[in-house]
Amino acid sequence: MERHEIVEELIKTNLAVRDFKEEDVPSDVILRILEVGRLAHSSKNTQPWRFVVVRDKAKLYEISRTTPTGAHIARASFAIALFTENAKLPEIDGARAMEDMILYAWSLGIGSCWITNFDEDRVKKLLKAPASWKLITVIPFGYPRNPKRLGRKRRKPLSELAYYEEYGRPVTALSEER
Amino acid sequence: MERHEIVEELIKTNLAVRDFKEEDVPSDVILRILEVGRLAHSSKNTQPWRFVVVRDKAKLYEISRTTPTGAHIARASFAIALFTENAKLPEIDGARAMEDMILYAWSLGIGSCWITNFDEDRVKKLLKAPASWKLITVIPFGYPRNPKRLGRKRRKPLSELAYYEEYGRPVTALSEER
Repeated sequence: MERHEIVEELIKTNLAVRDFKEEDVPSDVILRILEVGRLAHSSKNTQPWRFVVVRDKAKLYEISRTTPTGAHIARASFAIALFTENAKLPEIDGARAMEDMILYAWSLGIGSCWITNFDEDRVKKLLKAPASWKLITVIPFGYPRNPKRLGRKRRKPLSELAYYEEYGRPVTALSEER
Repeated sequence: MERHEIVEELIKTNLAVRDFKEEDVPSDVILRILEVGRLAHSSKNTQPWRFVVVRDKAKLYEISRTTPTGAHIARASFAIALFTENAKLPEIDGARAMEDMILYAWSLGIGSCWITNFDEDRVKKLLKAPASWKLITVIPFGYPRNPKRLGRKRRKPLSELAYYEEYGRPVTALSEER
């Protein structure tokens, strides 16, 4: 397969994974995932991301209780808590690094699921994060329990999301023109 | 190369590209890049992204003048303006979709560069965007003029960015443990 076909396949098959095997993700693999986050782009190359890897089961359980939709964090092999420090665009810089890590992890067969609505103060206390840090998210990672059962992505058609040259002009006009 | 090695290589080599060839990116390739954005994850699968593809040279020039750091938009083969509508987490949902598109474009040899500080009202007026849309960014895309001259990424070492189990504990402790 060509490089772009591999990226296409990864993006098409990368569904949210909430049910993880008990199998550990090896330390060197976790470090390689972090390395991908380190290499991400950020506004003016300020590199404002701060990562805390959590593997301790008791701590994963405690973190899972800081959001109403994160019970599966307790079953993850590990989680990466993503913070930013002194970022001008914390969500954008943070999301770009995490998205790269999520896609790279998936290329290694490791699933994940973006979670929101954390009680930031409780997460920061659990991880002894400095007051100056801002929590973006905590993402659980692990090998999917049922990789074969990964389904299809339900998405709107491009005609409802994309336009050509200006709002209202169908994106299909793009291929008619040249 | 294995799938993860290809993603690694793409991430390592994907530097900001501001100098584009005049060569057009074909319409079907632009549509495939948009398709990757369409398949992105979003909070509760709300799919709040709205994309406007701009190819018209006069319009690209006008957009380049709506930010102090985007002169190269005028030299792009095309740009994707990214908005969100009714998003709970506009920057995160937006950045995740755009990051996937940027990485996928790079797998096809198409470079890009994240730009900030747009005059949102002016961009919305140029693209006839509805009042309810929020601008996230406009990203120029094109074939790099000097692909061979792409340099190294300057990044902080992981020891300054990542920790294990809690802030202050070196991330290297991760591989010592198991």
